Amino acid sequence: MGRRVCVVVQSRANYARIKSVLVACAGHPDLDLQVILGASAVLERYGDLRASLQAEGLNVSNIIHNVVEGAVPATMVKSTALGMIELSSAFENLRPDIVLTVADRFETLATAVAASYMNISVAHTQGGEFTGSIDESVRHSITKLSQIHFPATERARNVLIRMGEAPRSVFLTGCPSIDLAAGAKSKPSLAALNRRGVGGSLDPAQPYLVVVQHPVTTEFDSAQDQAACLIESVERLRNGGLQVVWMWPNIDAGSDAMSKALRTYREDIAPENVHFYKNFDPEEFLSIMQGCTVMIGNSSAAIREGSFLGVPAVNVGSRQAGRERGPNVIDVGYDADVIYSATQTHLNREQPIESSTLYGDGNAGQRIAQHLAEVDLTVQKSFYIDGEK
Amino acid sequence: MGRRVCVVVQSRANYARIKSVLVACAGHPDLDLQVILGASAVLERYGDLRASLQAEGLNVSNIIHNVVEGAVPATMVKSTALGMIELSSAFENLRPDIVLTVADRFETLATAVAASYMNISVAHTQGGEFTGSIDESVRHSITKLSQIHFPATERARNVLIRMGEAPRSVFLTGCPSIDLAAGAKSKPSLAALNRRGVGGSLDPAQPYLVVVQHPVTTEFDSAQDQAACLIESVERLRNGGLQVVWMWPNIDAGSDAMSKALRTYREDIAPENVHFYKNFDPEEFLSIMQGCTVMIGNSSAAIREGSFLGVPAVNVGSRQAGRERGPNVIDVGYDADVIYSATQTHLNREQPIESSTLYGDGNAGQRIAQHLAEVDLTVQKSFYIDGEK
Amino acid sequence: MGRRVCVVVQSRANYARIKSVLVACAGHPDLDLQVILGASAVLERYGDLRASLQAEGLNVSNIIHNVVEGAVPATMVKSTALGMIELSSAFENLRPDIVLTVADRFETLATAVAASYMNISVAHTQGGEFTGSIDESVRHSITKLSQIHFPATERARNVLIRMGEAPRSVFLTGCPSIDLAAGAKSKPSLAALNRRGVGGSLDPAQPYLVVVQHPVTTEFDSAQDQAACLIESVERLRNGGLQVVWMWPNIDAGSDAMSKALRTYREDIAPENVHFYKNFDPEEFLSIMQGCTVMIGNSSAAIREGSFLGVPAVNVGSRQAGRERGPNVIDVGYDADVIYSATQTHLNREQPIESSTLYGDGNAGQRIAQHLAEVDLTVQKSFYIDGEK
Amino acid sequence: MGRRVCVVVQSRANYARIKSVLVACAGHPDLDLQVILGASAVLERYGDLRASLQAEGLNVSNIIHNVVEGAVPATMVKSTALGMIELSSAFENLRPDIVLTVADRFETLATAVAASYMNISVAHTQGGEFTGSIDESVRHSITKLSQIHFPATERARNVLIRMGEAPRSVFLTGCPSIDLAAGAKSKPSLAALNRRGVGGSLDPAQPYLVVVQHPVTTEFDSAQDQAACLIESVERLRNGGLQVVWMWPNIDAGSDAMSKALRTYREDIAPENVHFYKNFDPEEFLSIMQGCTVMIGNSSAAIREGSFLGVPAVNVGSRQAGRERGPNVIDVGYDADVIYSATQTHLNREQPIESSTLYGDGNAGQRIAQHLAEVDLTVQKSFYIDGEK
Repeated sequence: MGRRVCVVVQSRANYARIKSVLVACAGHPDLDLQVILGASAVLERYGDLRASLQAEGLNVSNIIHNVVEGAVPATMVKSTALGMIELSSAFENLRPDIVLTVADRFETLATAVAASYMNISVAHTQGGEFTGSIDESVRHSITKLSQIHFPATERARNVLIRMGEAPRSVFLTGCPSIDLAAGAKSKPSLAALNRRGVGGSLDPAQPYLVVVQHPVTTEFDSAQDQAACLIESVERLRNGGLQVVWMWPNIDAGSDAMSKALRTYREDIAPENVHFYKNFDPEEFLSIMQGCTVMIGNSSAAIREGSFLGVPAVNVGSRQAGRERGPNVIDVGYDADVIYSATQTHLNREQPIESSTLYGDGNAGQRIAQHLAEVDLTVQKSFYIDGEK
Repeated sequence: MGRRVCVVVQSRANYARIKSVLVACAGHPDLDLQVILGASAVLERYGDLRASLQAEGLNVSNIIHNVVEGAVPATMVKSTALGMIELSSAFENLRPDIVLTVADRFETLATAVAASYMNISVAHTQGGEFTGSIDESVRHSITKLSQIHFPATERARNVLIRMGEAPRSVFLTGCPSIDLAAGAKSKPSLAALNRRGVGGSLDPAQPYLVVVQHPVTTEFDSAQDQAACLIESVERLRNGGLQVVWMWPNIDAGSDAMSKALRTYREDIAPENVHFYKNFDPEEFLSIMQGCTVMIGNSSAAIREGSFLGVPAVNVGSRQAGRERGPNVIDVGYDADVIYSATQTHLNREQPIESSTLYGDGNAGQRIAQHLAEVDLTVQKSFYIDGEK
Repeated sequence: MGRRVCVVVQSRANYARIKSVLVACAGHPDLDLQVILGASAVLERYGDLRASLQAEGLNVSNIIHNVVEGAVPATMVKSTALGMIELSSAFENLRPDIVLTVADRFETLATAVAASYMNISVAHTQGGEFTGSIDESVRHSITKLSQIHFPATERARNVLIRMGEAPRSVFLTGCPSIDLAAGAKSKPSLAALNRRGVGGSLDPAQPYLVVVQHPVTTEFDSAQDQAACLIESVERLRNGGLQVVWMWPNIDAGSDAMSKALRTYREDIAPENVHFYKNFDPEEFLSIMQGCTVMIGNSSAAIREGSFLGVPAVNVGSRQAGRERGPNVIDVGYDADVIYSATQTHLNREQPIESSTLYGDGNAGQRIAQHLAEVDLTVQKSFYIDGEK
Repeated sequence: MGRRVCVVVQSRANYARIKSVLVACAGHPDLDLQVILGASAVLERYGDLRASLQAEGLNVSNIIHNVVEGAVPATMVKSTALGMIELSSAFENLRPDIVLTVADRFETLATAVAASYMNISVAHTQGGEFTGSIDESVRHSITKLSQIHFPATERARNVLIRMGEAPRSVFLTGCPSIDLAAGAKSKPSLAALNRRGVGGSLDPAQPYLVVVQHPVTTEFDSAQDQAACLIESVERLRNGGLQVVWMWPNIDAGSDAMSKALRTYREDIAPENVHFYKNFDPEEFLSIMQGCTVMIGNSSAAIREGSFLGVPAVNVGSRQAGRERGPNVIDVGYDADVIYSATQTHLNREQPIESSTLYGDGNAGQRIAQHLAEVDLTVQKSFYIDGEK
């Protein structure tokens, strides 16, 4: 029997960032993969992932229900807490040797706390990066609970060591999300665009924008204004003839206000060339990104996978503040005029944007699986200071 | 109305380390102090703190019950989770501007997570220090969720900045526990030693040891052996005529096994010159430390307050690994012979140990209150790299 | 200061059934009303009640978040549990003399358990009635935790006494929902019908059906089939020219499957004369019921308020099995033909249906407030057997 | 594979009352037994049951940790809630056909709620009996959530039917606790009395009292006074030369105050002929009861097993109010004089008390196992009224 590696996936975004690792672990002779799905990953309205994993031949070991409805800051706390209660019981049953947690969504802190308190080695992807929102705090907090690190970039690797993580525990592997991007098709199918979601019918042969805007929990009270601003600028672009693929926001605090603004927009204006989506399978979404004219909003995908795919991106607001960027990103604030003109800058671009390997070369999954099989496991952490110990 | 500062106290150990801050905040004209008591701080068998605070004229705003019995690693997770659920409701009612959390016990992570997710500024004492046990991970994890830092030592201050905390948010104040030590009486009273606990009657005029040994959660399975080893060495010292003040372990995972070993020892041997205590008021305990011959075990008090008071200490095992020490500490492993002979070394000492201000000069409480009243409050954290931003 | 009566409202349905009591208690000189809102009553997507209460001049003492998303049987358990954790803290702060809980939704059991374990007298409305679904078990279970009973019907009163409740604790008051029905307007306004929800525009001057179908938790696996059957029969009626007011299901287990069937229907067929609603204010809904041609589904409103208003109703399936009925109800099973022909029977009716006072005369709120002010409070329950004690 | 019967055992008292059922189910060819241990049944300080079950060859399927420390009314609510969260996850993994819950302790309501909400048939022992404390409410509340009933007495059977339970679902089997009593040895061994607990050494050949006093949650504030009263009367009897076997109270709200009074008594008086015990194995305790002179307190064992064994009992206070009694019980209030003289009445008795089969004949376990294998399983409950349906 191999080393038991338990991966906790708590959202569709998590899944896209870890899928190639799941596949690589499942196929590794020295690893026994366990998958726990929780939070929005098992909710109908955010796109239950169970079918997606089954389709990949990946078994789910355990389902946990831990989303406390409300999407206010206090329910973020309670959802994380409920996740800890459920995960501690699940870990007692599954007895993993390593628990792998993905990136920096608020509820993923539950995984790191539960595993570390239970003396299970914690492995973490996307440590050492910088952003805004509560994610910035969550990410570094998870790092300090983790024994094994798989940063995506060289800078992130250095940040981790600077934060006191021992170099022998930090493995620069690139981001698994780039593994999927490397295999993305260049254009979405008509069916992919129209068989789901609500709104007008889109033609993938004609230019279209992709809009993804999530709430920034640390700017909770501005969620409605931020949505209004983005709607205003997209309305202008849409009236100029561009089609729009619009993604609903995630469950972070502020999503209710943001969704309400979107719903009102959709029902009042009923824009014919805008289609709203709750989610896609990761590969589908990557081909939609690949084929789009410009991507607008505050999604990390525009910056990570976008840099590899060379997707023109307008990044709005503070959510991605500090994150390393390729040449595909123009940063703007919440100002409808500025968002509009930054988009125009991309539209007027004469040369396509070159692909960047800033976030990886497409082989992160295999590398991570191999490290998980080989790394020395320790429980007690100790702060690393170079030259001192 | 002043700035609302909410301090969450989750154990008697927490209280000793923050008491001078509570008193200073309560008396500060620009601060409104709120105190939440939770975890073992409200449990009869660990010494309910309500009466102690009342005696100091400190009001308790809220009580939370969050200790899930069991003292295994999984219940540490569940207790922390329940704390998060309760604290998020309490914070909604109390609406603090700043939440202050103390040191590094596992359940204190609940305070930092709840407050930071709710966009309340988190202040933290004892950040930047190094130890063993899960405390090491918890402490640094809390740092990365906190906006305001009150390190106790110069080295700790530098570690915090190295970890990415902005220098303007890091205030070297010394440890509030030294404030109490600075006022400690030089000898305990007879009453203090004999009116509580169980066991033989002690005479404060005769030499006595103080033994404090807590479980190390990351060495959960060794708790019983560790207790047995300590008992063996203390038995030898006791048979040599020394009296013993023995403290029961705290509620960390492993405490059941450790308590059981102690109970068996007490009931089987019924040692006449050993007295067992659940807890003391902080000042009482400091005078007991002040008057003792040697302190044995793995308590941080031996190292922190002990360095200031010049208490000869034998520190056993990994729990305090990496913590800065004054000249009063001899470090040993779990070996009864070595513990015995290290104690003899102290007993044979000709000169008293000098007081050290490594952990503070006795004015931390006033300094912290003043910073809390004046510091700029921000919600969004951002990683500091010197020379870069 | 008066007797503190705390009413816990956990859904919009709860609110309609207790509103007249809230108003009467708020105005009673010997009562201090406390209102706690929780569960779906504070969720945007089920119609957050905070604004509604504010509009009535009713203060909310406390908000609790306790809905664990998923709408499967296990999340019903977890939502109820989280409610208990939150309510026990809220009751500690509010110190009510009496806690009043409404009817029989699964999460209301949390209120009765929390209050009774905390030695607070529990008052309960709608005890002693019979239905299907888990409500049947929940209702009687709450009765056995309650000290004070406000049954709606004579039969229900007798059932409560038969179950061992002392006659002096059982007050036949009628159902507060009838108080609102007694004041309902005879026709909804155009605005009420069209300013909310999604779907075609409706004309209140033309005949319309009202369709309300909730999941039956004890038939969880049939939810999708039941929705399909109802859709089929309504499609036939709609194609015959009738307009349709369709309410989304509540959050009971099965609501995801049911909602999905409805969403698919709405998006595939896009029926012009059907409008879908999440919720109405109680009075608005009563005027919609009052003005409708036939009401179809399994809502208790069709039977309770419907009997008073004389609304022709087709009751489908087991959810209301055993509930007392007025002459306005035709009962049918899940068979599209039978549902269709029962509706035709109502449409062919020559005389309007007479109003029945089976569930009350419109003065329940005042009566209940007065009893709450006067009733002797006891904590210890004791089983009543007539003629024996 | 047989029918899966899951028994949830949450205390040592539960275990004694269900052990013969566990053994019978484990040996039944058509049943697959699952055992979940939770609450105080897995706590060291209340006597962890894991070893006891293992010694009987009974496998434990799942352990849950759900006791929230504090022993106040609010923590009873939270412990029950945590039990519901954990049990709903455990039931999802174990997929039982029937869940069996024992008697009426507050945390057992968690079992009935979780299983019934999840559409699993609930079987219940000891329904239809009358007592005081919160148990009275809990017991009947569980009945109304249960599909299958195993009452111990004829009267209890009739009460269940009167409460609306269908006669075909009510099986008069006697109480499984009598099965163990039927096999009890007539005298405890010296070892059984002295190898555990704390206090003086007892001689089983000399007369001894058994004192068992639990808190009455509905009289929470009187716990300390009630303990003081009992201590006073026992002191008088002890000074008269009787030995005393004294059991610590259970974890119900009030146990902290009661334990404190006992601890003070023990440490201040240090009575030589009194020995204090946390727990015994069921058979051991029955032989101690069998051999005792008089049993004093408010334990149900004095009434149930005591009636079968003919143990002279003085029942104090309201905790057992309403419970059917054999001729072995004298009921008294909290008055030290009256307790003393009632004990004297028993001591002056010339004839032994005859055994009664009021609570069973010793074959309940076999009967219950057979019914569990054969009974028709239904999910939807419906209220039974004789002559009506």
